[in-house]
Amino acid sequence: MKEVKVLEIRQSVFADNDRQALLLRQELKEKGIFLLNLMSSPGAGKTTTLLRTIEMLKDRFRIGVMEADIDSDVDARAVSESGVKVIQLHTGGMCHLDAGMTRQGLEGLETGDVELAVLENVGNLVCPAEFDTGASKNAMILSVPEGHDKPLKYPLMFSVCDVVLINKTDVLLYFDFDMDLCREYIRMRNPKAKVIPICAKTGEGMEEWADWLAKETADWRKR
Amino acid sequence: MKEVKVLEIRQSVFADNDRQALLLRQELKEKGIFLLNLMSSPGAGKTTTLLRTIEMLKDRFRIGVMEADIDSDVDARAVSESGVKVIQLHTGGMCHLDAGMTRQGLEGLETGDVELAVLENVGNLVCPAEFDTGASKNAMILSVPEGHDKPLKYPLMFSVCDVVLINKTDVLLYFDFDMDLCREYIRMRNPKAKVIPICAKTGEGMEEWADWLAKETADWRKR
Repeated sequence: MKEVKVLEIRQSVFADNDRQALLLRQELKEKGIFLLNLMSSPGAGKTTTLLRTIEMLKDRFRIGVMEADIDSDVDARAVSESGVKVIQLHTGGMCHLDAGMTRQGLEGLETGDVELAVLENVGNLVCPAEFDTGASKNAMILSVPEGHDKPLKYPLMFSVCDVVLINKTDVLLYFDFDMDLCREYIRMRNPKAKVIPICAKTGEGMEEWADWLAKETADWRKR
Repeated sequence: MKEVKVLEIRQSVFADNDRQALLLRQELKEKGIFLLNLMSSPGAGKTTTLLRTIEMLKDRFRIGVMEADIDSDVDARAVSESGVKVIQLHTGGMCHLDAGMTRQGLEGLETGDVELAVLENVGNLVCPAEFDTGASKNAMILSVPEGHDKPLKYPLMFSVCDVVLINKTDVLLYFDFDMDLCREYIRMRNPKAKVIPICAKTGEGMEEWADWLAKETADWRKR
């Protein structure tokens, strides 16, 4: 695998994250860069989903990826193989990214002509939900093996997401996962969230997700 | 299901958590209470593992359980069916428990004659690893669907655990999970950690885990 650029992220100096996030979102809008913040538990399939999404959209948009991790660069190396611009962000133990940290990442990525930027956040259903990164839209992945009760236990994460992908549908048979109940729990937390069952490994449902992302990106870039 | 006691945990007032943890551990030692801190990602199987562990050990030890969650009491209600003493701790959005919060939980549980207390921590591989709860031993569950690379990405969690349970071995066939590589990665982070593959659903490997826990509890309670 290729070597990738690794950036050690510094703690943000700004106390008012909401204001920093608003400023960043406005700047990205002016530059025509759509930023997706992708969140999930560890191992829910963020990188696999991202790799397939890149494959589906890389001829339509210039894509840049920021892989945030506490340590290691395995994900960024995997993404670099897809040919898109990528940077690994090391959070040095920090459990989330805020707007100031996301800005550091975007500067490190050297966005230039990037149209669709993706931040793969730290695998964590708690802390990333509390910090607006400045993203245009928030997406999260819940995987079937985690169970359909997660919206009950991690309410904030589900309430801040514009779209919830339910991944690993290929193993539905082997787990006690009730898709209807899961949709109902998500609706309780967030009636507006779009829910798309997918299997990043086999490709099931990925068309609907890629269409959603392409439309949001195109809409965002319209003046 | 039964109604269970729910305690809203307050943020700790102590700045020096390590000292608070040391004090709590000493107090528990004097009272003959072994405290297990059980950690994992969301949905890795903490509650299912705990339910089977209780079934295996409840005739040997008086068991008390603290179920920490940001919200909901589904886990505590499930545990209450097993007949052991249980309390639901609500962290009010907080992503981990520290020693002061654990102390509040133990007081709420009214440990009395409890010999083996279990804290089911918030589902999170990042923050709980940073705070000593005062537990006698730390255990974590990594589930097969999460992938064998997790020790690379969440190093601190693996380095603070005395035992790592690798759960959901019944679905090994359906995931690209390399058990040998996983053991090697865990060893890199923590050469002393005991690794036990289990399936809490079918019972596979649970004897070895229950034996370990019973021995640690008995040793702790020896004067």
